[in-house]
Amino acid sequence: MDKESQYKKLAKELVKKMTIAEKISQMRYDSPAIERLNIPSYNWWNEALHGVARSGNATVFPQPIAMAASFNEKLLKDVGIAISDEARAKYNEFKSIDSTQIYQGLTFWSPNINIFRDPRWGRGHETYGEDPLLTSKLACSFINGMQGNGKYRKVDTTLKHFLAHSGPEKGRHGFNSIVSEKDLYETYLFAFKYCIENSDPSAVMGAYNAINGEPCCASPTYLKKLLLEDLNFKGYVVSDCGAICDITDFHNMSDNYAQSAAKAVNNGCDLNCGKAYHHLVSAVAANLVSEEKITECVEKLFTARFRLGLFDDECEFNKIDYSVVDSKKHQDLNLQVARESIVLLKNDNILPLDSNKKIAVIGPIADSKEVLLGNYNGTPSHYTTILKGIQNYCKTTRYARGSKVFEESNPEWEEMPLNEAILAAKNSDITILALGLTPQLEGEEGDAFNSDMAGDKIDLNWQKCQRELYNEIIKVSDNVILVNVSGSCIDLSKPKKDCKAIIQCFYPGAEGGIALSDIIFGKVSPSGRLPISFYEKIEDLPPFEDYSMENRTYKYFKGNCVYNFGDGLTYNKISEEYLDKDTVKLINKGKYDINYSLLKFRHIPNKKLVAFKKIFLEANSETIVKIEDEI
Amino acid sequence: MDKESQYKKLAKELVKKMTIAEKISQMRYDSPAIERLNIPSYNWWNEALHGVARSGNATVFPQPIAMAASFNEKLLKDVGIAISDEARAKYNEFKSIDSTQIYQGLTFWSPNINIFRDPRWGRGHETYGEDPLLTSKLACSFINGMQGNGKYRKVDTTLKHFLAHSGPEKGRHGFNSIVSEKDLYETYLFAFKYCIENSDPSAVMGAYNAINGEPCCASPTYLKKLLLEDLNFKGYVVSDCGAICDITDFHNMSDNYAQSAAKAVNNGCDLNCGKAYHHLVSAVAANLVSEEKITECVEKLFTARFRLGLFDDECEFNKIDYSVVDSKKHQDLNLQVARESIVLLKNDNILPLDSNKKIAVIGPIADSKEVLLGNYNGTPSHYTTILKGIQNYCKTTRYARGSKVFEESNPEWEEMPLNEAILAAKNSDITILALGLTPQLEGEEGDAFNSDMAGDKIDLNWQKCQRELYNEIIKVSDNVILVNVSGSCIDLSKPKKDCKAIIQCFYPGAEGGIALSDIIFGKVSPSGRLPISFYEKIEDLPPFEDYSMENRTYKYFKGNCVYNFGDGLTYNKISEEYLDKDTVKLINKGKYDINYSLLKFRHIPNKKLVAFKKIFLEANSETIVKIEDEI
Repeated sequence: MDKESQYKKLAKELVKKMTIAEKISQMRYDSPAIERLNIPSYNWWNEALHGVARSGNATVFPQPIAMAASFNEKLLKDVGIAISDEARAKYNEFKSIDSTQIYQGLTFWSPNINIFRDPRWGRGHETYGEDPLLTSKLACSFINGMQGNGKYRKVDTTLKHFLAHSGPEKGRHGFNSIVSEKDLYETYLFAFKYCIENSDPSAVMGAYNAINGEPCCASPTYLKKLLLEDLNFKGYVVSDCGAICDITDFHNMSDNYAQSAAKAVNNGCDLNCGKAYHHLVSAVAANLVSEEKITECVEKLFTARFRLGLFDDECEFNKIDYSVVDSKKHQDLNLQVARESIVLLKNDNILPLDSNKKIAVIGPIADSKEVLLGNYNGTPSHYTTILKGIQNYCKTTRYARGSKVFEESNPEWEEMPLNEAILAAKNSDITILALGLTPQLEGEEGDAFNSDMAGDKIDLNWQKCQRELYNEIIKVSDNVILVNVSGSCIDLSKPKKDCKAIIQCFYPGAEGGIALSDIIFGKVSPSGRLPISFYEKIEDLPPFEDYSMENRTYKYFKGNCVYNFGDGLTYNKISEEYLDKDTVKLINKGKYDINYSLLKFRHIPNKKLVAFKKIFLEANSETIVKIEDEI
Repeated sequence: MDKESQYKKLAKELVKKMTIAEKISQMRYDSPAIERLNIPSYNWWNEALHGVARSGNATVFPQPIAMAASFNEKLLKDVGIAISDEARAKYNEFKSIDSTQIYQGLTFWSPNINIFRDPRWGRGHETYGEDPLLTSKLACSFINGMQGNGKYRKVDTTLKHFLAHSGPEKGRHGFNSIVSEKDLYETYLFAFKYCIENSDPSAVMGAYNAINGEPCCASPTYLKKLLLEDLNFKGYVVSDCGAICDITDFHNMSDNYAQSAAKAVNNGCDLNCGKAYHHLVSAVAANLVSEEKITECVEKLFTARFRLGLFDDECEFNKIDYSVVDSKKHQDLNLQVARESIVLLKNDNILPLDSNKKIAVIGPIADSKEVLLGNYNGTPSHYTTILKGIQNYCKTTRYARGSKVFEESNPEWEEMPLNEAILAAKNSDITILALGLTPQLEGEEGDAFNSDMAGDKIDLNWQKCQRELYNEIIKVSDNVILVNVSGSCIDLSKPKKDCKAIIQCFYPGAEGGIALSDIIFGKVSPSGRLPISFYEKIEDLPPFEDYSMENRTYKYFKGNCVYNFGDGLTYNKISEEYLDKDTVKLINKGKYDINYSLLKFRHIPNKKLVAFKKIFLEANSETIVKIEDEI
């Protein structure tokens, strides 16, 4: 019997011993212990988009949108391995004191493989960007790294949010995404299908919203038929948190929670984050759902628990020691990822920078820890801000905040930071201007500062105070290097004209300041590329609520972007010469060794990424690469 | 003619050319330009309790309560010199672009020499503690360092808040302090009188509250008679911000702002922070105040401006270069102050610590920047948290936050940080537990988190979440070193029993983490002493609103403190042997050189500090010191 059948058998036997009430209790994310059967309590909720999150100390890798900019599958796998090592080490420790609280288990509700359809979406930076192939391949690598390939599954990963979910955050609990067949297959479903076919994700999470009228967590068309039957997904399905009560409260598609719970179970949702499945007891009593169906769900869930080795004291991963957590080895990997995640968009012969110049570091996020960490993050034991990273290279740095991060009330006695920044710029050779967003300005509903928008962006601009700072600095400094930190696109049309260099830094993780300064001062060449389009203005796009892909993302956008998907400079001159359709000669002229991102597009009927590869190029070298279309 | 008479003469001549409206305009903190007389605008409001504040980058020294713990007059003078150097450098730069905004001038509303009468007061950490002599001498040193002794005054200092002001923050705008004659002279007035007699402070700031029924900024008894006539104070008087409107709005002692403004001017308040003096135009028209009185005020203010060399392009301080700001030299001084500000309260043979031990660093403020900086602070370009400082010594550190800093809402999806901390403690040899308050938990009205109390404390306890953390850690670790960070006393009675060592760290400035770890790992010996009593519970004290000194501070408190004013251990054994009344032999047995704080108390009729001296003692040495009673 193969190991999977073994786990199923064990699950079946165990579930058989449970009463119906016991079974139902195990379908909640906070599953209680069943002491008579020696089943400990288990909390299914854990997060690891870019490091074990919300569970104390952990290596905090760059935000997924930043990792996507690396276009480096291997790195994503290494990150997955590192995270799952830390997850196991933490799990082992928590187990030693029988602690089974939230964020202490092995079942991770990551990755977020939704397509970053519209730059307004506050959670877009949790994703791998706007391209389905890039998203799919990076997610597969991450999943493979996380889950491993041993006797036991190392940790569970969960594809979220099934099926078409990308804002608005406001109203997400009752929103209905209207999605055409074409967009479904080309865009929204693509990465789910690809990951299921090319890796073996343990779980899928249903979204809050409805798709074409059917709430995702209880959809007969998309969950039951498409995912479970057509795609033959064999893992378990979990609801987003509170999503099943939303069917009653916001979608208005059932009279009570028992009905909603039954709908969800009957359509394939095995596990509930939230409280709706408390009502399964009455749903079963009212024959809204059968005991067989319940049993099927619980068997899937216990198959997963057996597959993780949760009931085996000899599980190979039980030996992973706590010392791996936020270890030097992981910090080094993190630095590597951070370096490859940074995108050089413009360089008017100013970079790399001479560290003997008088340098002003200006901007409200220059010394910010929070922009390193993104959202759904852990707590690093060490971190390096942008300012600190630059100071490590350059002793004559002058630092000025220059403005607040965002507008708040303006009491009369408030600090006026602008003039200090003007003076710093005036009295320096070079100004490194660090502006941008923070996870407080773009984030999840309830999590972000801009509560009117529930975390979404209203436009592509910096906050007013930062725009004022930008305008004043540009007036007094001819040598501005703009570092834009954000998890989404910002209108860079003015900087493209004004600044000598532009560096796009997505939330870069705990080592972000080191990585950025390594690039600024030429220790390494930049190699990242944009995983999203940088539009000029929001008016160029369809309404946020419109899920048609028409005129969205580099594949379908009809206007001109300020910077395009795939853009990214290096410090070398690298040329790509196609010898035939699938063979390219790369010539690296320059003194830097580079991990080069080779992107291959097809242009008919529209531009489309068909393959990508990360290739190590030695300084002043040539190499021949095979790159075949993958779609 | 002496220089002071010269400045007065210049002021008189200039003021003579002004219209009455122009004169009145110059009595506002935001004095507008008078272009026809070549008088630029000037904003009088600046702050520098422990570094140039709210004006961007500056060296951020320890909070005043921490500096008081050094009992080191010389350091306070050096700090004053460093701050005024930075202030001049910043002023020179701002002047180069004609910037005269708030926090850019040379007139500082520091030091705060109020007596820290009650531990509930949120602003107590801005002061030098509870002893009048300590407060007086440290303030004098600070003032002398700040103001200098050159042709021009380097910067202005301001004694605040005249006369009896120490909470509550809530209701401060209409509060009336009832003060006895004995308490007035022994406590509240003492430092004001001492500083005026022994240094030459440029200004005095009137408090918000009333004293014995008279609002401080318009008090005939205390401002006009006591300060200006009896103490013969020759500088200018400024109101606290909004305090003159408060006479109408909260003290209900005038019908309108014109009346309040007239009252203030007639009783000696020359400068208004706020908007009340806009109404002096109508007050003069209504004969509530004479033009002569107005002229007198404005002459004082322009004497100060001439004394600062504001109208002389050749002023000696115009050459101070920006490079002094947050310079290496000042950071080194800052580190020295921080080291001397840390107080070792208990040491059960555990300190100094062997850096090869497995050390857990636990606590929500261990990696906090804000606890370094205190309030009324600048922005350092470098800083070292407690965690970072310890990590610099010890490579096997394990870090866990353990709890939130204070209670907030508890969403279901919130991180549960406690168990990670328990595990860190269990799996380490030593636990360094960093708990305490932050400037958000104790601060000024409108500035602090606990809006119900307007910044004041309700009791002497840590927040509930921190108490829980403490209790759990104590259960699992036998070797707890408690680092309590706060600007006021916390009940340490339990830690006194439970912990192997207790270190009191008042908000220690940008170098705080380095200073603390230098002490923990024995690079230097601690030498600080408590400048306040550490009571066990608030119930042992009179009501907060009661300004009687009966049963308050070490001088009059009848109960037992957990730790006493003046307490502070070193790593050496140091004995004090009085050879006669004023001659003491100090024997330093131990390997540390120490800056030793020698405190001399009289005990009749009650305990009272009568002299103190900071004395450098070489390792294993004896020295004879003269120390005469100063009061």
